Amino acid sequence: MSLDAVLARIDADLPAATDRLLELLRIPSISTDPAFKADCDRAADWLVADLTSLGVETSKRATPGHPMVMGHVAGEGPHLLFYGHYDVQPVDPLELWDRDPFDPQVEETPKGKVIRGRGAADDKGQLMTFIEACRAWKAVQGTLPCRLTFFLEGEEESGSPSLVPFMNDHKEALSADLALICDTGLFDSRVPAITTMLRGLLGEEITITGPDKDLHSGMYGGAAMNPIRVLARILASLHDETGRITVPGFYDRVPEISDELRAQWEGLSFDHKAFLGDVGLSELAGEEGRSALEMLWARPTCEVNGISGGYAGDGFKTVLPSKASAKISFRLVGSQDPLAIRESFRALVRGMVPPDCSVAFEGHGASPAGSFDTTGPAFEAARAALSEEWPDPAAYIGCGGSIPIAGHFQQITNTTPMLIGFGKDDDQIHSPNEKYDMESFHKGIRSWARILDALT
Amino acid sequence: MSLDAVLARIDADLPAATDRLLELLRIPSISTDPAFKADCDRAADWLVADLTSLGVETSKRATPGHPMVMGHVAGEGPHLLFYGHYDVQPVDPLELWDRDPFDPQVEETPKGKVIRGRGAADDKGQLMTFIEACRAWKAVQGTLPCRLTFFLEGEEESGSPSLVPFMNDHKEALSADLALICDTGLFDSRVPAITTMLRGLLGEEITITGPDKDLHSGMYGGAAMNPIRVLARILASLHDETGRITVPGFYDRVPEISDELRAQWEGLSFDHKAFLGDVGLSELAGEEGRSALEMLWARPTCEVNGISGGYAGDGFKTVLPSKASAKISFRLVGSQDPLAIRESFRALVRGMVPPDCSVAFEGHGASPAGSFDTTGPAFEAARAALSEEWPDPAAYIGCGGSIPIAGHFQQITNTTPMLIGFGKDDDQIHSPNEKYDMESFHKGIRSWARILDALT
Repeated sequence: MSLDAVLARIDADLPAATDRLLELLRIPSISTDPAFKADCDRAADWLVADLTSLGVETSKRATPGHPMVMGHVAGEGPHLLFYGHYDVQPVDPLELWDRDPFDPQVEETPKGKVIRGRGAADDKGQLMTFIEACRAWKAVQGTLPCRLTFFLEGEEESGSPSLVPFMNDHKEALSADLALICDTGLFDSRVPAITTMLRGLLGEEITITGPDKDLHSGMYGGAAMNPIRVLARILASLHDETGRITVPGFYDRVPEISDELRAQWEGLSFDHKAFLGDVGLSELAGEEGRSALEMLWARPTCEVNGISGGYAGDGFKTVLPSKASAKISFRLVGSQDPLAIRESFRALVRGMVPPDCSVAFEGHGASPAGSFDTTGPAFEAARAALSEEWPDPAAYIGCGGSIPIAGHFQQITNTTPMLIGFGKDDDQIHSPNEKYDMESFHKGIRSWARILDALT
Repeated sequence: MSLDAVLARIDADLPAATDRLLELLRIPSISTDPAFKADCDRAADWLVADLTSLGVETSKRATPGHPMVMGHVAGEGPHLLFYGHYDVQPVDPLELWDRDPFDPQVEETPKGKVIRGRGAADDKGQLMTFIEACRAWKAVQGTLPCRLTFFLEGEEESGSPSLVPFMNDHKEALSADLALICDTGLFDSRVPAITTMLRGLLGEEITITGPDKDLHSGMYGGAAMNPIRVLARILASLHDETGRITVPGFYDRVPEISDELRAQWEGLSFDHKAFLGDVGLSELAGEEGRSALEMLWARPTCEVNGISGGYAGDGFKTVLPSKASAKISFRLVGSQDPLAIRESFRALVRGMVPPDCSVAFEGHGASPAGSFDTTGPAFEAARAALSEEWPDPAAYIGCGGSIPIAGHFQQITNTTPMLIGFGKDDDQIHSPNEKYDMESFHKGIRSWARILDALT
């Protein structure tokens, strides 16, 4: 049977596939930092060359930001689109990495082999699972299995500023029967997953200005307003004593999950003590009376992602600073409207700034939550294919992260997104020492081969 | 008359004196940053050479930190000690400086000539006013006016860790009839001042640790505690709605000022609107019902001098950070006990940290407030001498800053401190674009000549 031959080819080619991934990981394509612009471009070129070698008609498409990589292959059967992103998160704090984040390597660990380096899991390793499945298919069968479109982005980690305009300009090329998106995780090492609920994301940066210059805290302290004090008061007010977010109207369009979904999630027996224990915590920090999976998948959040102001170097400096800033993100669910919440948040903040201080806002992305219809036959076929590859049957799950592209496919190209990925909770994406399990990579490639076989 | 000859010599020598100060300002003696250790040493060497050229028997004395410079001259009459410090504050944010902070120069401004550069006012320019007065005296008279001890410190801006042990080890050499300390300011451009009240200083750094690594805010947000949220809540709780500090027992030993002093201060007609207006503010931020001079000179404060946590670079990173830190300082008055307040503050903070987060404390200096007896004849003599040099009579004032050395002279060597300086409110000490008015420098030198004449 031809699928077996493809799977055998994948197994035999794993060392070479790993080397290709390591090569891509060596390119520091940090999209949020302008210093790495040329590297983002280089990562796009690498993918163009790799896809071209598979017979995919591929090109790099310029945007006002980092380029898109698009590739097309003609074929019979359904038209499948594959989406991944080749950009990565910044690497700071660099001193917490055990190795150069852009000198990746395969490491033996007590839990098995891992590929360690920035982007290993998010999203270069995941993106390559699909490309490697196609490579094996092509090697065995001589052609790819169906009509395919590849769509690889370079701005996912920096708010995707070019994505929607680009999709609007290329509606036809980006319309397909199904958009396969590989940027999510397994439920756990045994249970693969198709993600059907995603949280939205609203990013806001606020800067409070008090005095127009840094002051000596002895000469002015007590009489002059300190912007860090103003900022702390604002941030402390964003959650009430029960963990609820205080932005007016915030919960207006937050639905309760259905009893059916609640029962399914309870059936997953999620061990939140172990989940938090892995990162040195023990207590759920969200709204009182909610389960861990609700907090992670079905409830909105407000987090401070960064804060700065005054002197933060070694030693001490008795400065009363002019400015203090915070980066804040909201994860959204249901039909929460990112722009309405942005306005409500900004009004709340403005109301807390003393008359002689000022506040400046900068928006960083605003995407609604998504949920995806799983009633078509493709979903059950893909779920069955995944269940073949992994120890336990595949589950439909939620995801706390935000993958705006999924909603864009629904809204702009009327294409059903199908989110399948092989990341694990301990991959440390966005953190020091990011890794991707060799098991995720290997079985991920095999999973795509099975899914391609099932869908075509 | 010989004083006139000394004053004339000072006037004639001003350009050369300015060049000498510029030379000292070029040495980046930032004591808090270990990267500048050799520069601190170089500044000490420069002062040893300069004092030696005046016939002062001078040496550099090693400490566990930066060296002390000590010099002695035998002579008749009272034994005067002079204290200043040759170390300077860090220069960040560097981008707000209009020039290299260590490439000082004399600038023409609408308000007159200024000497611009880090340390121009705090404290190299002030320190040199006394040395230049001695230089002119020596040039005219052939000897210095009385028995003199010079005591120049290199750790004032980093909490003076070596100061007390050094003073205890050199009690005899550092005992004098009067300790002249030049590290304070004028009341304003017309009114010179002897500072008789100083606030104490307690520095604390707190670091909250939540998860044991940085996390993805989508994957963990809502369930995992964010240490910035904990920190913001702590900082926001340190002041109540009326501006009072909430640390238990904080006000226990804070005295009300006397009616007499209150009347004197009211007589100074301090314009707080202009004082705040100069730095872009308009409203007093301290305790309700207190005057501006009370807030600045006679009431304790709590300020956040720096805060950091998570991603603070360009763009956005949806990280849920492992740690968040703040540097906090308390200005103390009356007989507030720094160590008791440190313990009370730490207990308050510990009580606000959730069970699965942790807090680490680092102390940065702890010195009580000081107030100085002005009843001896030397004070009235010095006040009269100052009043001769400046447009209006000299005043006894308070100072919001902390100059722990003054208390150490009282307690360790039983020497009365006399704080006279020529800084102005707009000198931007501890801030970008620090400057010292040429008027402060020139009339400061002349003031010391008059005071030396009056005291000997």
